[in-house]
Amino acid sequence: MKPELGVCYYPEHWPEAMWADDAQRMIETGITWVRIGEFAWSRMEPTPGDLHFDWLDRAIEVLGVAGLKVVLGTPTATPPRWMLEKHLDMLAVDANGQPRKFGSRRHYCFSHQGYIKECTRVAQIMGERYGRNPHIAAWQIDNEYGCHDTTVSYSHLAAKAFHHWLENQYGTIDALNEAWGNVFWSMEYDGFDQIEPPNLTVTEPNPAHVLAYRRFSSDQVVAFNKAQVDVLRPLTDVPLLHNYMGRELDFDHFKVGEDLDIATWDSYPIGFLSDRLEADDAQKTTFLQQGDPDMQAFHHDLYRAVGRGRWWVMEQQPGPVNWAPYNPAPLPGMVRLWSLEAVAHGAEVVSYFRWRQAPFAQEQMHAGLLTPNNRPAPGLAEARGTADTLAGMGTVTQVQAQVAILFDYASDWAWTAQPQGAGFSYFRLVFSAYRALRRAGLSVDFLSSSNFPTQGYKVILAPGLATLDSELEQRLSGACDLCVLGPRSGAITHDFQIPKAGRPGLSRLDCDVDLVETLPPNVHRGVIGGGAAQHWIDRLSGTGPDLLSFEDEAPALKGDGGLWYLAGFPDEALWDRVITMTAHQVGLSLHQMPEGLRRRETENHTFLINYNADPVIWNGHQIGACGVTIVKKDAPEER
Amino acid sequence: MKPELGVCYYPEHWPEAMWADDAQRMIETGITWVRIGEFAWSRMEPTPGDLHFDWLDRAIEVLGVAGLKVVLGTPTATPPRWMLEKHLDMLAVDANGQPRKFGSRRHYCFSHQGYIKECTRVAQIMGERYGRNPHIAAWQIDNEYGCHDTTVSYSHLAAKAFHHWLENQYGTIDALNEAWGNVFWSMEYDGFDQIEPPNLTVTEPNPAHVLAYRRFSSDQVVAFNKAQVDVLRPLTDVPLLHNYMGRELDFDHFKVGEDLDIATWDSYPIGFLSDRLEADDAQKTTFLQQGDPDMQAFHHDLYRAVGRGRWWVMEQQPGPVNWAPYNPAPLPGMVRLWSLEAVAHGAEVVSYFRWRQAPFAQEQMHAGLLTPNNRPAPGLAEARGTADTLAGMGTVTQVQAQVAILFDYASDWAWTAQPQGAGFSYFRLVFSAYRALRRAGLSVDFLSSSNFPTQGYKVILAPGLATLDSELEQRLSGACDLCVLGPRSGAITHDFQIPKAGRPGLSRLDCDVDLVETLPPNVHRGVIGGGAAQHWIDRLSGTGPDLLSFEDEAPALKGDGGLWYLAGFPDEALWDRVITMTAHQVGLSLHQMPEGLRRRETENHTFLINYNADPVIWNGHQIGACGVTIVKKDAPEER
Amino acid sequence: MKPELGVCYYPEHWPEAMWADDAQRMIETGITWVRIGEFAWSRMEPTPGDLHFDWLDRAIEVLGVAGLKVVLGTPTATPPRWMLEKHLDMLAVDANGQPRKFGSRRHYCFSHQGYIKECTRVAQIMGERYGRNPHIAAWQIDNEYGCHDTTVSYSHLAAKAFHHWLENQYGTIDALNEAWGNVFWSMEYDGFDQIEPPNLTVTEPNPAHVLAYRRFSSDQVVAFNKAQVDVLRPLTDVPLLHNYMGRELDFDHFKVGEDLDIATWDSYPIGFLSDRLEADDAQKTTFLQQGDPDMQAFHHDLYRAVGRGRWWVMEQQPGPVNWAPYNPAPLPGMVRLWSLEAVAHGAEVVSYFRWRQAPFAQEQMHAGLLTPNNRPAPGLAEARGTADTLAGMGTVTQVQAQVAILFDYASDWAWTAQPQGAGFSYFRLVFSAYRALRRAGLSVDFLSSSNFPTQGYKVILAPGLATLDSELEQRLSGACDLCVLGPRSGAITHDFQIPKAGRPGLSRLDCDVDLVETLPPNVHRGVIGGGAAQHWIDRLSGTGPDLLSFEDEAPALKGDGGLWYLAGFPDEALWDRVITMTAHQVGLSLHQMPEGLRRRETENHTFLINYNADPVIWNGHQIGACGVTIVKKDAPEER
Repeated sequence: MKPELGVCYYPEHWPEAMWADDAQRMIETGITWVRIGEFAWSRMEPTPGDLHFDWLDRAIEVLGVAGLKVVLGTPTATPPRWMLEKHLDMLAVDANGQPRKFGSRRHYCFSHQGYIKECTRVAQIMGERYGRNPHIAAWQIDNEYGCHDTTVSYSHLAAKAFHHWLENQYGTIDALNEAWGNVFWSMEYDGFDQIEPPNLTVTEPNPAHVLAYRRFSSDQVVAFNKAQVDVLRPLTDVPLLHNYMGRELDFDHFKVGEDLDIATWDSYPIGFLSDRLEADDAQKTTFLQQGDPDMQAFHHDLYRAVGRGRWWVMEQQPGPVNWAPYNPAPLPGMVRLWSLEAVAHGAEVVSYFRWRQAPFAQEQMHAGLLTPNNRPAPGLAEARGTADTLAGMGTVTQVQAQVAILFDYASDWAWTAQPQGAGFSYFRLVFSAYRALRRAGLSVDFLSSSNFPTQGYKVILAPGLATLDSELEQRLSGACDLCVLGPRSGAITHDFQIPKAGRPGLSRLDCDVDLVETLPPNVHRGVIGGGAAQHWIDRLSGTGPDLLSFEDEAPALKGDGGLWYLAGFPDEALWDRVITMTAHQVGLSLHQMPEGLRRRETENHTFLINYNADPVIWNGHQIGACGVTIVKKDAPEER
Repeated sequence: MKPELGVCYYPEHWPEAMWADDAQRMIETGITWVRIGEFAWSRMEPTPGDLHFDWLDRAIEVLGVAGLKVVLGTPTATPPRWMLEKHLDMLAVDANGQPRKFGSRRHYCFSHQGYIKECTRVAQIMGERYGRNPHIAAWQIDNEYGCHDTTVSYSHLAAKAFHHWLENQYGTIDALNEAWGNVFWSMEYDGFDQIEPPNLTVTEPNPAHVLAYRRFSSDQVVAFNKAQVDVLRPLTDVPLLHNYMGRELDFDHFKVGEDLDIATWDSYPIGFLSDRLEADDAQKTTFLQQGDPDMQAFHHDLYRAVGRGRWWVMEQQPGPVNWAPYNPAPLPGMVRLWSLEAVAHGAEVVSYFRWRQAPFAQEQMHAGLLTPNNRPAPGLAEARGTADTLAGMGTVTQVQAQVAILFDYASDWAWTAQPQGAGFSYFRLVFSAYRALRRAGLSVDFLSSSNFPTQGYKVILAPGLATLDSELEQRLSGACDLCVLGPRSGAITHDFQIPKAGRPGLSRLDCDVDLVETLPPNVHRGVIGGGAAQHWIDRLSGTGPDLLSFEDEAPALKGDGGLWYLAGFPDEALWDRVITMTAHQVGLSLHQMPEGLRRRETENHTFLINYNADPVIWNGHQIGACGVTIVKKDAPEER
Repeated sequence: MKPELGVCYYPEHWPEAMWADDAQRMIETGITWVRIGEFAWSRMEPTPGDLHFDWLDRAIEVLGVAGLKVVLGTPTATPPRWMLEKHLDMLAVDANGQPRKFGSRRHYCFSHQGYIKECTRVAQIMGERYGRNPHIAAWQIDNEYGCHDTTVSYSHLAAKAFHHWLENQYGTIDALNEAWGNVFWSMEYDGFDQIEPPNLTVTEPNPAHVLAYRRFSSDQVVAFNKAQVDVLRPLTDVPLLHNYMGRELDFDHFKVGEDLDIATWDSYPIGFLSDRLEADDAQKTTFLQQGDPDMQAFHHDLYRAVGRGRWWVMEQQPGPVNWAPYNPAPLPGMVRLWSLEAVAHGAEVVSYFRWRQAPFAQEQMHAGLLTPNNRPAPGLAEARGTADTLAGMGTVTQVQAQVAILFDYASDWAWTAQPQGAGFSYFRLVFSAYRALRRAGLSVDFLSSSNFPTQGYKVILAPGLATLDSELEQRLSGACDLCVLGPRSGAITHDFQIPKAGRPGLSRLDCDVDLVETLPPNVHRGVIGGGAAQHWIDRLSGTGPDLLSFEDEAPALKGDGGLWYLAGFPDEALWDRVITMTAHQVGLSLHQMPEGLRRRETENHTFLINYNADPVIWNGHQIGACGVTIVKKDAPEER
């Protein structure tokens, strides 16, 4: 696969006279893909039924003729104002019971059937018009599902849809009452239509209730997306895709991904470090203008799994953004670094957001490759430099990694519903595991619990995996030499009960979680020999051998052959020890990486990616500040 | 009195086949009391009027036959879902104007007469069925009034009830306007029905308005409770009780207590330290797995006053709970320590919550004496150990303490309505006084302003007592050799005005508060000779002698004979000085206690209670880590 | 002009028998002005149409006869309870969509025409009755517009008024869509009546939408005020005024001020330091009992501009207040210091709030010159001392300062709508500039963008000035020798777009902002030679000479002749350097002031004002702790 560059473009924002020049300059920058259309409903259909696609026809023509492949977006993330006149109750309702008003974007409830019909209608019109247009090379459906906390709605329509969903799941209300343990606090229902969304309760609602609502809400996103897929499939042969957001866990991306051909995501490294990552001040300061060294790779690997191998960056930050608490500029080199890192992880396309900075509205402070008055912004030269590097690099081919992490959206919903300790977060836990693997210089795959290779991994980690049945335990065992579970793995049933067989309820390891403790952030439980657990402690019993022990002699890691269980949320030192132990067990080569330097292997290359503001020498290679060194596999990477 | 152990049990959560074994194991653990029924309304009456008490009959029989005394709870804290169909407007309304929805517990407004009738109906049915049942040895009414911020409701029905309450209080609207000073800001009302609950005002409401609403809301709780008392009294001869929560000040417990026979409370030492106590990180870390050394004793002593001598711990934490921000496990020994400390303070029964951990719903992470799959949890052995200690100890008899603190719920409402300084809190102030007395090794009684012994105390403290009339001043003087008031004592009238006679307006001490200052937490006002005041400063004038002075020579403590007034919120050093001065004045023996070690005297024993994770040697006694040493009075406690 | 003292008095709060004595004591204190009436609507008109002005007649008579000049307030900030029966929808609605209830003050929506009619009705009645009363020497309209966040209302009536306002502004909906860039995210409207207030949107609304709503809301205040002005003007010849609040930026004071004769403001130095000023703990502790040394002067100078030279302090803090998080007492001397500082800045009257502390309602903890039981509070003697100083001082005459700051309310609205960095605040930026000028010992004028002298300044600063057209650029150039813009000056158009000519789009300096960065508070960008920028960085290009450079060699200050542009938000050291550079450029004498000591020049005096708790010696003058030294101009100020 030869990676390419793209850009997001809004012809409706600019005089038509500028389009041809824009297209020409894109080509000159080395860009071959352009995404358009995804927010332009008010220009496609200014009033209901009054279709205006002529401008879009011309835009596609201009871009296509210039040599660009067009990704066309359905505009359903931005229903025009008139839509609300037709569908008064289409707004999502927030957790306080307030409708979320018009005036920005994503102002719809996923359970509003009337709005879904409007979406399939516009998709049908667009598909019929452009489905066989030779310039249209992919379709994007909607934009950033879940962004701005829009997955879960507490509307009356959502409540009604939830009743049906519950009835499908449980059949009878007695079955639901039993499954949720509603005998507790006399919460038993007499019928499905009595069950409201779990907001505004006096104290916390039943976590089973919350988890069901989260599953339902995720399924509504899947159904919403599929409705447009079903319309477009017969009308086009090119791939369908969606652009997911970073650290967006409110719906099951694997399930949405199953209906699409390519996963893409929107990568804003500096914004994410400022806004979406727990990190201490020192870390945030060190990487202020580079982004966290593991955050992008984490998502690249995750979305590679969501896309079953096919994935892009649809929106790559090219300069300061507008939406984080603090918005510094990338250091010189970072736009190229991010682009090449994506390529190293298998991106087919890296597409910048956006071509030219808008001079108006919400994102007027969001940099583009060009300034609002059409001068080159710093990102433009970096895009051009990236194109040059790609041109010289040949094909990039991904290989199955030796280690993998099982990622499970429902586990995040479960542990958000019942964190038990304020410091416990599924994302934090998985991310800490991912970081540890990267510190060890390993390339990593992500797996979904429903779909992964039947063999080929040396190690699979499944920390925090809420529900683990014997079928999954067996499949995991088959797929790897060593599976490391815990903490908080196999802790609940699908209906959020403690399993009758106990936690984690493994067949191959005698290991029981008798009791759980959560700790404040300043308290750590030391492990004999180094490292500590924090936030979460599973107190283990059982005959499985203790591989590590806490200082109070309680087991910190139990394991037998190919199955280990980790009894706490590891700090960095403990993760490093555990990864080293797994390496010894299964014969895995580790490469200890210095801070900010990361490594990624493809079939023919090793990428050395330096997030530091200073050059690094590692293993004989000099990697410049904010630079990437690409080593051909026949060249000596490590001496 | 010979203390006993109890446990909270939910037969409706478990197969009937387990009940007999459970009862047998309770007896084996040394447990003699079992509380049941308080959340089981949906099983007693699955649909309106369809009564199902057969299972409860059998559960009582099984438990009683095994030798257990049963506390039966009315289930009115958990109205079933069908109740809302009958009473659409029964939900309490929060301060933002939102009804608080079904899906957890305590989802009722205390002012809903329809719901109160449902409660008396179910109490009547239960009383008729079980009132003379020989196994029923006590009744619990409802559960944890006020928990989850449920005392104050801003519903329309509450507003209406408030109008009647105000009319009863004030007679005419002119009287109310005068009493509240409504001429200020033209807030005068033309009729009672114009007066809304004091929420959502543009800036803060009149504190007189808020205080009246708080008094009213408390009275609604008293009335709600009394309605069930009135039904049960004729139907049973055994004691009626309620289980109060810790640091729950939203209603007047003394008033509720007057209608009941025994006060019980729910003691969660580790949860409270994490969630309900201002303490610095060091304190929270030192006692992370033990709880604060004074928090439990404070409540024991307070509820002993509420129960007029008769009190229990109804729910004793037996392991990690689920509801605090962080939920670590108790250190070994702590469950026994907490139990014995309760006994030292006069608990008739210490009852663990709960027998077996539920595998479902909100509290599935709340430990019991048994694990969900019926294995012994750490608390079980400690309960058994406690029973053994109790068996060897004989009777425990309480004696009137030498020092007492006047505790007044309305003062908390007043100072919450108008803190004047962000650091001022009535609870903090009283708790700091209590801590100081305990650091001095003293046993402490609590008094309510309406009911206390006419004599017998050496010292009574009444810090922060909002309203002090001459009748109360006189009664206090009679009851003790030395009464210490201040800061902020006698500061307002019943209707939240500054008294015309000035603050504090004492007849026996010439001392006026001319001006009040509040200070940020990092600013202290030093007292000459040591110690400082913080948060709150009363600037005193008057001819009463200055016993202590601030460094700027303003009086810090004024006093004359048996009446002192303290001019600021003391830090620890200043409290210690003041307590020492009182001891010299009235001839009181102090026992300076090391950190974490506390002391409690009964008629025949001195209990030495060590909250530290290490052993302590004190006065020749070695008290083990998390241990209790019980010294018979004829033995030498202090050498 | 000979400055005088005043006091705020509430005859309706006290028995009529006290009035004459109160008036007598005011005179004895040296007070010559008294403000009354502004909250007394419920006493003027207890029920609709039932007028009771007899008590007010007598109060005015008593006060006037004693020799006091009366400021009479219209009571429209406190509509009585019956007003809500007449106008059910008159309450403002908060950003969450909740009506803000009765029970305090300012409970009205500025867009409610019915309420405005009630206000003009009562103003008419009062004007007719008292307009020619010889004791009435000024009128205050309403009270503290905007206080308690009351400028912006999200009511339906506000929405309707907004539609008309928008139609007036834009003419056609197409023009509005174009001006706001509503093509972005398909936010285009079909008609004005579709445009809702910009609250409760899914993510942030269009900043153009927000800015328009803020302009509209400000205009509603102006119109509300003008309605009463229009009624009173024909009925009286004495000045009309309003009492503004400190750090209240939600409406354009210059525009309200244009309709009035005198600007007055309410100065609470200690409350402001606690509640309304970003300052570190050390600063807050040092000046805990004095207030910030620049905060009062800032407002004095600002309101002198709002009043076009005529201004008062209407409410001067005389002791602890009730409304800040912490409310300590002023140090001895501070009440006099604040009073004399106001005089130094040109106050015609300094009026204390309030005569006697109220014993009831919301402000019962707010000190007065007398205690609730009519004893002298500490402020009384300081007022008397101030009167003595004033008596000995002769006239005070203001002169145009050599330096000025352009202050623009709309810039605050713009940058609040889109801060871009969490640390950026217009007020903070302007205040930091003001502090720097004061550290340099300079007297400062404030200018509004629509009205300032055509010449006479050496330096004008316009930091953060959102919109800068060529007309204003030209006027600024004419008015001063050197104009310093930036950061974030000229950054948007009136409709919140990036100007087509670029930012800042200057005609006299080639300087472009290509890119903007915002930084977290712990990150500073050093400037070569000393000082640093924080929070905000404008990255400049253009041929204009670099006067200062960042350590990465980017321009930190560009300038050419009389126009400079500053590229970041300066820290103290950088501000000091820039001020020093301007002084060199234009020949301005600086006087480096020690911490807490400030200097103000009038025609005949130099005031040296010492906010420190210790005496300071400066330039041969000893200024006592919390003291003021007034140097006659013929005396040597600096040796």
